[in-house]
Amino acid sequence: MTLQLLEERIARDAKIPGPDILKVDMFLNHQIDTDLLWEMGMEFHKLFASENITKILTVEASGIAIACFTAKFFHCPVVFAKKGNHRNVGDNVFTADVFSFTKGSTCTIQVSKDYITSADTVLIIDDFLADGNASLGLKSIIDQAGARLAGIGIAIEKGFQPGGKMLRDSGINVQSLAIIESMDENGIVFAH
Amino acid sequence: MTLQLLEERIARDAKIPGPDILKVDMFLNHQIDTDLLWEMGMEFHKLFASENITKILTVEASGIAIACFTAKFFHCPVVFAKKGNHRNVGDNVFTADVFSFTKGSTCTIQVSKDYITSADTVLIIDDFLADGNASLGLKSIIDQAGARLAGIGIAIEKGFQPGGKMLRDSGINVQSLAIIESMDENGIVFAH
Repeated sequence: MTLQLLEERIARDAKIPGPDILKVDMFLNHQIDTDLLWEMGMEFHKLFASENITKILTVEASGIAIACFTAKFFHCPVVFAKKGNHRNVGDNVFTADVFSFTKGSTCTIQVSKDYITSADTVLIIDDFLADGNASLGLKSIIDQAGARLAGIGIAIEKGFQPGGKMLRDSGINVQSLAIIESMDENGIVFAH
Repeated sequence: MTLQLLEERIARDAKIPGPDILKVDMFLNHQIDTDLLWEMGMEFHKLFASENITKILTVEASGIAIACFTAKFFHCPVVFAKKGNHRNVGDNVFTADVFSFTKGSTCTIQVSKDYITSADTVLIIDDFLADGNASLGLKSIIDQAGARLAGIGIAIEKGFQPGGKMLRDSGINVQSLAIIESMDENGIVFAH
């Protein structure tokens, strides 16, 4: 379900500093246009309104803002997976290893066992979907908790990378607000 | 300006796993109660409504949620300072070194020069104020940009640590929604 407002913003402002790199830090993941993200949250709520969502799960840091605005419409908590070892989380955690193409390295994400349980129906929200590794890591945590995965809401999917197909082929309801079919020096083409 | 709802939540749920450590990750910085943070954002808006805020500045990751809900009331963007080196930010950045007592180490925070400029009036929002180092780092970035610092909004101030006094003594308008005077095995005492 395309969000036209987001596509227009990407078309207007996004930069492509290198192959497969989409720079949207002017409105999404460094500076945050909170009015735009509010609209995105409303759209995710429409898309998953029938799912009885009890938790929104994302990864720090750039997923937190979208997850929070989405959760506001569901009136449910956000849980954000932390990266690496944090002192105050404790040993009572679910973990998963995630390879990040942005950073070129693997990191461990972790979620306290107190905050995702078998009673939860969880919606994953993230800013980007490319190879799908972050989503798989979050799904692993949901599986470890015995919770139900209701679906995955993504702001920007790189449709030319394999994550979206892989996740949808496995039966997951993946909804991306903008899907980029191709991007290069000639511009950005969206899939509809 | 105390927010009673927040004090009540701290009194009910917060844990004190060690000296000077307040664990509020069940509603503030791992799992996020978005309805509570919405109220906190509304309160920060009341406190700084006359300041013509153009940007909310915070640090990843745990400041982002409160900053976003606050910015929603100001209808202005959030900028969150990133920790360490991120590939997609580029060299065009302001930096400051911040010693984190939580992690026991110094990290470099950075903000793109594109997103804080001399035209901005900036409100700093953060989850905790203890020794004030994170606030000083963010203030340094605002100073480097030639922007105006309108004030600092804090969710929970550890009033028994020196950051609040140090910042207020330097003339900064610091507003904390809950100020903890003391905390130990006997409970938490708030300053009013």
